[in-house]
Amino acid sequence: MRLATIRTATGTRAARVETNVAIPLGYPDVGALLAAADVQDINRIPPAGKPVPVEDADFAPVLTSPSKVICVGLNYRTHILEMGRELPEHPTLFAKFADTLIGARDDVVLPITSAEVDWEAELGVIIGTSLRRATREQAHAAIAGYTVVNDVSMRDWQWRTTQWLQGKAFERTTPVGPFLVTPDEVDHARDLEVRCEVDGSVMQHSRTSDLLFDPAATVAYISQFTTLRPGDLIATGTPGGVGAARDPKVFLAPGQTLLTVIEGLGECVNVCREEKE
Amino acid sequence: MRLATIRTATGTRAARVETNVAIPLGYPDVGALLAAADVQDINRIPPAGKPVPVEDADFAPVLTSPSKVICVGLNYRTHILEMGRELPEHPTLFAKFADTLIGARDDVVLPITSAEVDWEAELGVIIGTSLRRATREQAHAAIAGYTVVNDVSMRDWQWRTTQWLQGKAFERTTPVGPFLVTPDEVDHARDLEVRCEVDGSVMQHSRTSDLLFDPAATVAYISQFTTLRPGDLIATGTPGGVGAARDPKVFLAPGQTLLTVIEGLGECVNVCREEKE
Repeated sequence: MRLATIRTATGTRAARVETNVAIPLGYPDVGALLAAADVQDINRIPPAGKPVPVEDADFAPVLTSPSKVICVGLNYRTHILEMGRELPEHPTLFAKFADTLIGARDDVVLPITSAEVDWEAELGVIIGTSLRRATREQAHAAIAGYTVVNDVSMRDWQWRTTQWLQGKAFERTTPVGPFLVTPDEVDHARDLEVRCEVDGSVMQHSRTSDLLFDPAATVAYISQFTTLRPGDLIATGTPGGVGAARDPKVFLAPGQTLLTVIEGLGECVNVCREEKE
Repeated sequence: MRLATIRTATGTRAARVETNVAIPLGYPDVGALLAAADVQDINRIPPAGKPVPVEDADFAPVLTSPSKVICVGLNYRTHILEMGRELPEHPTLFAKFADTLIGARDDVVLPITSAEVDWEAELGVIIGTSLRRATREQAHAAIAGYTVVNDVSMRDWQWRTTQWLQGKAFERTTPVGPFLVTPDEVDHARDLEVRCEVDGSVMQHSRTSDLLFDPAATVAYISQFTTLRPGDLIATGTPGGVGAARDPKVFLAPGQTLLTVIEGLGECVNVCREEKE
């Protein structure tokens, strides 16, 4: 099953996606839908609006108001080792805000105050049921589905201080979507191709099987210190190939198209747009 | 004027505090109240419940569901210099979650998975009106009031990786309250005594006039990358005297009382309690 959050004339709506149409349901976003209904019952929820062809849908971020957006730093084995680092014992974690997220077809706003906007294609994990101090098995069972994320990062701000938040939480810069895809459709995202392209040039290309901390391990770890709730989003880290690690460095420019695609989950296609004062 | 969020039989309620009573208003917390009403109009809002003597009040965190909780790292000049560091050009910022916050009289839960729970007395700043890309003057005007925060930190988790989040966001560990005090009552918190005591021993003692990035500067800075909204909370950093910087190091133990007091704002008195499995 695929779910999405679409924008309508009366606000955002969760939608069940069937073949080529998005069927609006009576919830403002996929997070509210997951909080109200078990994933296996969503097929039986009656429509609350007219079906919208997927190709015409205006996608909001799949989650419009997650209580937590938690991102993992270094997490792809090959990338960690190629950078000459040792494999870490614990995941590196930082936060974003709901305001940071955009839809799968929205423009990425390039802030006038940053000259170093970089890409980070990532597998997104969406929580379906509340969990705290979960085992790996409980964490696995609490995952409602997977999505595509690009953890777009303002490197000049990220590295101003030791803490990355201010380079990671710029308003309306992180594409999330277009769909939540349930675990059964993608074998729990164990081995999916991840690719990021800028204007058609492949910048990142890896597989989720290279993740050091996989989704269940990451979710279980986070639940040791805080409760994860339905609609919370975990971005699981990015593989090699980011612009800041290239020689010379490359950053996003106005007019470029950022494509983030994960096998079986769909793609985010976001045009970079200069911020207006 | 003083505002609080108190727990009642029917859930949390924003309250206006007059002399020794808290008068419930028709909003679930101070954040919702600030989102609905201008600060200067709050005096005219009719009561929505029976007054509760302040000494009997069960204080929730002043903000129960802020969209953002942003904390500043190093920010007291004397402390930065005594640590042998240079004064930073930009504030160091990290996030907490709404789930991290507790009330001014609640127990601090000492997690079974941490042996290094430390104190950080901090001036809290509460946003009254939405702002984005604000000047210093606009930021100053958008501050609804000030409160007492203790940014309780699990040092062993904080320093597992380069990013502090996992040591800063343990569930139900950060006291916030008891009151929002409006800026006119404390001269915009320009020069208030800040003190932290553990079982009556003074551990931290400084003044807000030693802040490197003051509240208006910090709020203006954050607003450069994201929108701050009514009820959002900024914790402005802690002075010297934390347990991890002592020789030998000292951490909180079950049964100890953590007192966090800021002149004119009131105090948080929190007993440390061992977490039960």
